[in-house]
Amino acid sequence: MPHRPIGIFDSGIGGLTVFREIAKILPNEDLIYLGDTARVPYGTKSAATVTRYAFQNVRCLLQEDVKLVVVACNTASAFALDALQKEFRIPVLGVVEPGVAGALRAVAAKQRRRVGVIGTEGTISSGAYAKSLIEKSPGISIKSSACPLFVPLVEEGWWENDVAESVARVYLREILAEGLDALILGCTHYPLLKKTLRKVAGEGVVLVDSAEETALETSSLLDARGLKRESNPKPVRKFLVTDSPERFQRVGKLILESELTNIHHVEI
Amino acid sequence: MPHRPIGIFDSGIGGLTVFREIAKILPNEDLIYLGDTARVPYGTKSAATVTRYAFQNVRCLLQEDVKLVVVACNTASAFALDALQKEFRIPVLGVVEPGVAGALRAVAAKQRRRVGVIGTEGTISSGAYAKSLIEKSPGISIKSSACPLFVPLVEEGWWENDVAESVARVYLREILAEGLDALILGCTHYPLLKKTLRKVAGEGVVLVDSAEETALETSSLLDARGLKRESNPKPVRKFLVTDSPERFQRVGKLILESELTNIHHVEI
Repeated sequence: MPHRPIGIFDSGIGGLTVFREIAKILPNEDLIYLGDTARVPYGTKSAATVTRYAFQNVRCLLQEDVKLVVVACNTASAFALDALQKEFRIPVLGVVEPGVAGALRAVAAKQRRRVGVIGTEGTISSGAYAKSLIEKSPGISIKSSACPLFVPLVEEGWWENDVAESVARVYLREILAEGLDALILGCTHYPLLKKTLRKVAGEGVVLVDSAEETALETSSLLDARGLKRESNPKPVRKFLVTDSPERFQRVGKLILESELTNIHHVEI
Repeated sequence: MPHRPIGIFDSGIGGLTVFREIAKILPNEDLIYLGDTARVPYGTKSAATVTRYAFQNVRCLLQEDVKLVVVACNTASAFALDALQKEFRIPVLGVVEPGVAGALRAVAAKQRRRVGVIGTEGTISSGAYAKSLIEKSPGISIKSSACPLFVPLVEEGWWENDVAESVARVYLREILAEGLDALILGCTHYPLLKKTLRKVAGEGVVLVDSAEETALETSSLLDARGLKRESNPKPVRKFLVTDSPERFQRVGKLILESELTNIHHVEI
């Protein structure tokens, strides 16, 4: 079992921020990333459609004999994680719980524990973050904002320009109005906007990036189940995409800061 | 034959700008609109994927016994129209040729005939507009710009705010630098940004909206083939969507300026 690869899927390219952290923390693991680039984005689509896609993605990764699946997409985690965990025998991890854990740590010492959540329309409307935060910390204050333009801004490569800043000011105005202690970046694309979000939110707000938290949780889970691979002379990094590889390769390079190879087209 | 409906498809909601014009000019026709909202957008996807989707869309409309198909999506028209026309027996119309015809009329009296084309990454990279403009008017000057953020801006309802204007200034800067006589709005969403584009481009540039041109060409083609319906006590307006109807209904209402009913979910 430990020699089988880890599967990671996302609606498209953004999940590479999670892939990057997992590759860093778990260098001995073989990693197979599936980006559903032919149907991206998920954030504006319905729970039923996103859940259907998530099931197809896991089935595709199972054909690669993965030992564990990481749902790197927040929208898919928010809508489909429970159903995926019920359906499949291998462990399936999402990004919502790790993000929540990070936020709770960040506000633990604060008196008012004011957490902001930003994400896609789907993630925010699902209430997944709010539900989990309240369950684990009943007195917590939560403010949410859907930010539909952030994903296309990131995909366009406008991470730090004036337009990105103006858009961030509109989306964050209300949730920042009475102060925040932490802000959960509830979408895999958002860590790429960190500098802009830092500028708009100010230095006092902890920006919680669930990519690193998710990688840590993946590592703990592998340990707990005896699934961790301890050595690997040549770790595999393989990418599957449902659209043609060109765009994935181009934008992916910006995120991973290295050339992507071993990219294959799949139809699912 | 004339009693059969007209089929119109688009990647999502934007094609309603074409639907609206067809409904206006051809009030006696039954209209069936298919929005591929589960896989929207097409503009950032590859020619192969968009062509595959376009074929599936036409097949879905054929099940509704349509007499003619209008490809309201510019990206699908640019990538797939030729292949669709070869494959299917009923007439298939795109939006590129009508847009080109409109632009050529707009610059006919001008000395320099300088045409700008804006569209999705796919439409612009296909070169479909440039190819057709040069074929029909060899000496014409053409400048193109891909505007990936315009579609999400429209979908967000930010048609006339400061962000829309800043984005438009970035995308149009270069193609406006040496002056334009006409600007083809090469994406079904862009007519909704008309006020912003007018402000940025200035009064001297004719904005060519292919929706109206496409409706006129549809009417001519029906006449020429004896397919036009002359009377209809109760014209059908039916909408098929591949994602759930809620979002389509909400944003569609803004475009059609009336409540959308008779919306059905289909899986294709």
